[in-house]
Amino acid sequence: MTKSTHTDKTRPRLKVRRISLDTGRENVVVISRHSSALRPDVFRGFSRVELRRNSRVLLATLLITDDNGLVGPDEIGLSEPAFRRFAEPAGSLVAVSPAVSPESLDAVRAKIQGRTFKPAEIDAIIDDLTHYRYSDMEIAAFLIGSASFMTTDELLALVQAMARAGTQLKWPDTIVVDKHCIGGIPGNRTSMIVVPIVAAHGLTIPKTSSRAITSPAGTADTMEVLTRVDVSVEEMKEVVAACRGCLVWGGHVNLSPADDILISVERPLSLDTREQMVASIMSKKLAAGSTRLLVDLPVGPTAKLTNATEAMRLRKLFEFVGDHFGIAVEVITTDGRQPIGSGIGPVLEAEDVMAVLANDDAAPADLREKSLRLAAHLLEYDPQLRGGSGYARARELLDSGAALKKMQAIIDSQGPATCRTDVGKLTVDVVADDDGTISEINCLQLNRLGRTAGAPIDKGAGIKLFSKIGDHVEKGQPLYRIHAYDQSELDLAAASAKANCGYTIGPRHPAIGETAT
Amino acid sequence: MTKSTHTDKTRPRLKVRRISLDTGRENVVVISRHSSALRPDVFRGFSRVELRRNSRVLLATLLITDDNGLVGPDEIGLSEPAFRRFAEPAGSLVAVSPAVSPESLDAVRAKIQGRTFKPAEIDAIIDDLTHYRYSDMEIAAFLIGSASFMTTDELLALVQAMARAGTQLKWPDTIVVDKHCIGGIPGNRTSMIVVPIVAAHGLTIPKTSSRAITSPAGTADTMEVLTRVDVSVEEMKEVVAACRGCLVWGGHVNLSPADDILISVERPLSLDTREQMVASIMSKKLAAGSTRLLVDLPVGPTAKLTNATEAMRLRKLFEFVGDHFGIAVEVITTDGRQPIGSGIGPVLEAEDVMAVLANDDAAPADLREKSLRLAAHLLEYDPQLRGGSGYARARELLDSGAALKKMQAIIDSQGPATCRTDVGKLTVDVVADDDGTISEINCLQLNRLGRTAGAPIDKGAGIKLFSKIGDHVEKGQPLYRIHAYDQSELDLAAASAKANCGYTIGPRHPAIGETAT
Repeated sequence: MTKSTHTDKTRPRLKVRRISLDTGRENVVVISRHSSALRPDVFRGFSRVELRRNSRVLLATLLITDDNGLVGPDEIGLSEPAFRRFAEPAGSLVAVSPAVSPESLDAVRAKIQGRTFKPAEIDAIIDDLTHYRYSDMEIAAFLIGSASFMTTDELLALVQAMARAGTQLKWPDTIVVDKHCIGGIPGNRTSMIVVPIVAAHGLTIPKTSSRAITSPAGTADTMEVLTRVDVSVEEMKEVVAACRGCLVWGGHVNLSPADDILISVERPLSLDTREQMVASIMSKKLAAGSTRLLVDLPVGPTAKLTNATEAMRLRKLFEFVGDHFGIAVEVITTDGRQPIGSGIGPVLEAEDVMAVLANDDAAPADLREKSLRLAAHLLEYDPQLRGGSGYARARELLDSGAALKKMQAIIDSQGPATCRTDVGKLTVDVVADDDGTISEINCLQLNRLGRTAGAPIDKGAGIKLFSKIGDHVEKGQPLYRIHAYDQSELDLAAASAKANCGYTIGPRHPAIGETAT
Repeated sequence: MTKSTHTDKTRPRLKVRRISLDTGRENVVVISRHSSALRPDVFRGFSRVELRRNSRVLLATLLITDDNGLVGPDEIGLSEPAFRRFAEPAGSLVAVSPAVSPESLDAVRAKIQGRTFKPAEIDAIIDDLTHYRYSDMEIAAFLIGSASFMTTDELLALVQAMARAGTQLKWPDTIVVDKHCIGGIPGNRTSMIVVPIVAAHGLTIPKTSSRAITSPAGTADTMEVLTRVDVSVEEMKEVVAACRGCLVWGGHVNLSPADDILISVERPLSLDTREQMVASIMSKKLAAGSTRLLVDLPVGPTAKLTNATEAMRLRKLFEFVGDHFGIAVEVITTDGRQPIGSGIGPVLEAEDVMAVLANDDAAPADLREKSLRLAAHLLEYDPQLRGGSGYARARELLDSGAALKKMQAIIDSQGPATCRTDVGKLTVDVVADDDGTISEINCLQLNRLGRTAGAPIDKGAGIKLFSKIGDHVEKGQPLYRIHAYDQSELDLAAASAKANCGYTIGPRHPAIGETAT
């Protein structure tokens, strides 16, 4: 005897209605408590339903309403993402039944009990994820089940499955270089300097970047101040053909749709495991067609990595996955004790970047030095270049203005920026509460302040730093300036800075011959 | 320097609006994409918000709408559970800010990484859970993090914390007996026979039962056909004082609010670990003030437990927890290969129960026998009773009509039933598709059919069984009858039964002297 299935014939049908409810990634539908065709009571114990029309199927989470104005008794309300994905017009009749969980969830349940995934199971899970067949809770079950342990075989299968789920780029060159920073450090917009240097040298560097999720700016947000970043795959290829490099938003190119979904659940749960971080990054690099990759791991007390041991473990994992997929991976640790550059927030960071590229005297030296160092590593991938000359070559390309020229070519090629690009005129200065030497800067708190001030949505909101670790300050001297477009957000940021300015001022370093007090 | 906190003064405020959206257990709020006081963009990356008015705080999941009719730019829409729990009138002004996750989630994250919980951490988690401070995803994180392993210390702390979170009953007697079945077997309404027998003998047996979540009836649903079950704690105490026993709905008495919340997430994920099952049951028994407990573990191919090894492991865990908390636990395994009794669904099951209590000739013998056996075990807890005479005493109380009289006293004491109590008049007979002997009955499929026919919401919907394992049937002979109130649901159940009737008919047992073919 066969497994129970309801035929469409006997299923009650409801009329599709679009309801203006943005439910994030999750498909949500609403039916009336007085539904004429389907009693919500029947669904007690099932929180998920299946909508069917012709060959189209949608799994969704069910809510119930008593408001006939929202959803009538013969209707089913589809929230924005559900309506978009089901893609049937309002008024169409659909069959609705309690949803059967995707079969791949059996493997997730087994994993939770301590079993390992087979590669085919990971493929099925990623396929269900990217087709929005998992609820938020089911995604969480996969992530948490995997968080307690993940074997190297599982990790490789996950990278492979995630890379296959979206766009896969191919390039005519065998050497396609890329760089990636795991994030967490305010400012730190090295990619926007490294890419023009490396492209000016002649290597192919098709850089995709992310937008900020919880920080005041991602590279895509900052680059957007200067040029269009939401370009299509075809446009991206044209830019790279013309300039050797580009700086575009990876989300628009759809390199790893599974990663976008996983991250949207990892963030609210603050799950951050090594394996998932490596799977996220390496799946995108694999899909992007990169063959050489430099990974920047900042280490510092308020960075994502707080010590060298953690950094080394992560390095080994990157190398292992890179070796398996034929990507030459080089991992370096960098100083992550404080922000890089003086600006935090898209416009302020873009100003830093352009100042470095223009060899402006006021350009932040730390951003310049770090960018040169990273570019040097990438340039060494060029077999034509004499070993050890990468740094000198990078400096030559920057000092000569070749990198600036390349940046302008990339900007012209990607098209004009369309967002507001002025620095926020509303400002508050945060001052030192004592004399002394700055001993610590809290990256987490500066990220929070920048975000509270309105960045990255308000491009010109953010923070301009006047001092860094080791600088001597007098009581009342401004440490940094908060910029905003909006008074209420400036007030919120100022209040937060008053409670915790993010700077620790230690005793003044004694001058030679002086006695410490 | 202190941790950043926003003062209410600088926070924008929105007007509370109640929106008719039943979001289950989860608090959900809706703001306009054009919110005048609070830009939804700011919440990109935060899916949870905190509402504050005076000293009242509510954590909720945020949705965004473009529909001014639903929520205006100066309003915040509260779904039904959020509105009920926040308990501020429509139109009140509330401060809204991005929510900070409950601190206890740090322990959950550590657990996911392999650490064990400290008892104080479990207390904090259960406190946050029962105050609706966890999102569904966060609850899933706790459950899944605990599912991979749970130490015995963790289990004890969890039972303790869950028992303390709700009502805690105390009884004047030192011997307070209780029984519990882990469920899964259709019919099987032994509690409704065991309680009157044991109470008629004179032992205290204040029985709380659950409603069905995914089955066609729980004991509370079936008892409700005969009497009121949603009684208060005070009323329950009066019934027990008058009758020595009661049969009420545990949900109304609020014995384990944490368990109700955990179950609502376990079900959709189909998580069912031994430790969580034991914590759920034992926390309720501890809160209920039980001192003697009999646990019924049905074992069968389509029961919750499929073999004796699983049953033994579960038994040990019950005994361990019982010993720790001073509850004398006895665990027995029973035949779980098929339904107990002939009715499935509240009204049909209530008829079986009353037939057994009335010593009706047509009463199902299996239900009578199993109930007597369970009652015998419980009666042996009476120190006055001579060892080994429990069964004879149970039988005496049943056969003499003393149990029936006690049941009527309990019914009178709890008050009259208010629901519909007629058997569904719409019926379909499901017949044998061949001659032979019934070799298997699929409990899962019969549960599904009963549910599809409308039970437990339609009290008179369900299944009346005509044959059991070992019975010989001829082709075309009715195996069971599906009852319903509603034609469309009867049709759905009939279609499901056609695809899988749940009965396996093997070759006819050869009579002695005959040769098997």
